[in-house]
Amino acid sequence: MASPTADFAAWTGAVQARVEAALERFLPSGSHAPARLHGAMRYAVLGGGKRVRPLLAFAAGEATGADASRLDVVACAVELIHAYSLVHDDLPCMDDDVLRRGKPTVHVEYDEATALLVGDALQSLAFELLVGHGAARDAATQLDMVRTLATAAGSRGMAGGQAIDLESVGKQLTVPELELMHIHKTGALIRAAVRLGAQAGDPLSPERFERLDRYAKCVGLAFQVVDDVLDAEASTATLGKTAGKDAAQGKPTYVSILGLERSKELADQLRREAHAALEGFGACSGRLAGLADFIVLRKF
Amino acid sequence: MASPTADFAAWTGAVQARVEAALERFLPSGSHAPARLHGAMRYAVLGGGKRVRPLLAFAAGEATGADASRLDVVACAVELIHAYSLVHDDLPCMDDDVLRRGKPTVHVEYDEATALLVGDALQSLAFELLVGHGAARDAATQLDMVRTLATAAGSRGMAGGQAIDLESVGKQLTVPELELMHIHKTGALIRAAVRLGAQAGDPLSPERFERLDRYAKCVGLAFQVVDDVLDAEASTATLGKTAGKDAAQGKPTYVSILGLERSKELADQLRREAHAALEGFGACSGRLAGLADFIVLRKF
Repeated sequence: MASPTADFAAWTGAVQARVEAALERFLPSGSHAPARLHGAMRYAVLGGGKRVRPLLAFAAGEATGADASRLDVVACAVELIHAYSLVHDDLPCMDDDVLRRGKPTVHVEYDEATALLVGDALQSLAFELLVGHGAARDAATQLDMVRTLATAAGSRGMAGGQAIDLESVGKQLTVPELELMHIHKTGALIRAAVRLGAQAGDPLSPERFERLDRYAKCVGLAFQVVDDVLDAEASTATLGKTAGKDAAQGKPTYVSILGLERSKELADQLRREAHAALEGFGACSGRLAGLADFIVLRKF
Repeated sequence: MASPTADFAAWTGAVQARVEAALERFLPSGSHAPARLHGAMRYAVLGGGKRVRPLLAFAAGEATGADASRLDVVACAVELIHAYSLVHDDLPCMDDDVLRRGKPTVHVEYDEATALLVGDALQSLAFELLVGHGAARDAATQLDMVRTLATAAGSRGMAGGQAIDLESVGKQLTVPELELMHIHKTGALIRAAVRLGAQAGDPLSPERFERLDRYAKCVGLAFQVVDDVLDAEASTATLGKTAGKDAAQGKPTYVSILGLERSKELADQLRREAHAALEGFGACSGRLAGLADFIVLRKF
């Protein structure tokens, strides 16, 4: 019998491959006009990334017995929103980054105007996708999914977190302020991934839904804490994106506020809280538990 | 009794005021964090514009007996998408414009990064709004509305049209090529406004739906032809945006390809075709007919 670790690795590999194939299918063909835009959209999305949000959607869907074909839709919708945010985040007026997932960023490979439109069009595509393929058992749930994704992406979610991020450059933040920023910037979309994955399956009791959301909050925050640790410790080659950048730009991070050791402790505490939130779900939450470990213990 | 013209002017004024109030209500408060982003979103959307797309949505809704409160939702959702596209279009990497609706553009009044996020967040808000207020009689129709808006905004609609626009700078286009660009760039969202307005009311027969769509196509194209004529003829002060810019940037326009007189003839021909498409709708299409005239005969 395979070890739990080997089994988990096989599962993540299978989901990542499945999601890559679904993204490939859902994105407009690079030969379809406007060809340059469609080619750039594919460049931005395909062939890279850990696909953490799709993995979370699939793991949450497992906990509610969701069909894999529905999970393809919600996982890809969330990943398209994430991919658009990276393209815009890398633009010269934002983080001005030239490297992403080991490749030149979209505005470097194409041009700034195209990168702007790529992000805009990927956001639209996420919503088009979400309503175009029966991602939930009824239309009312599908509408709720759109609401979840739109809120998570917008000014009270991810875009709002990026605005807080802009305002925080060069400032000394407290830990609660930093947490607030990340709850919006990365946490909102991670929570949406878990919620949408769960909604693709059978209805959950409000209490279970709330536990799943608590899990997602812990994992979302842990993800960011670990990102900061890796940014401080790892090399550009390992990360596939420019390392040490936050510090160089005067951006507050968990490491700059708490130091390296206490940041690592915080990540592990969040991992344990995520596990605790899953109590009572039984075997069907095994992938979610595994992902909490994967996110905190990753090296890139 | 008021003249038809005075009556139409009163109606447009009332709808514009109603839409302004609804946008004011639907946009996040400028005192709600992140305050700078929310303030900039309000700056980008409120207090300006002809509100052509909301007027079309209200006029189409009149033809299907839609509630005004539902029309508020669809009109504002479409207008938010339009407003986001203007903010991104004005950025230095796109048209690099400093004046919009008689005010400094968002990136001039705020900064480029904020303007980028304003556009991103306005797009999300459009979808959040559309599903959050029961804009149609049932959930299935609401889902179809989301699909319509997302497709109109995305790479096969508005964003795609902007990509074609980028590629066409300095090129000599044929009239069909120019038409293809505008069918995407402005036409798609105008068609969506008419469609969503109609969907907010009672179901239409496929034949009537198709006639309404033909009307919208004609009006959408006429709108652009007239824009080109005004850009060539009017002053910056009258337009509230920089005049003569397309020619200066080497962008193909109807005027540069057809000349001024033939462009005016084309606009009037499209206006007559729009009227013809409405035959059989009777009195309930009076506002749509009036809008076709308004769009072609406007002076700004």
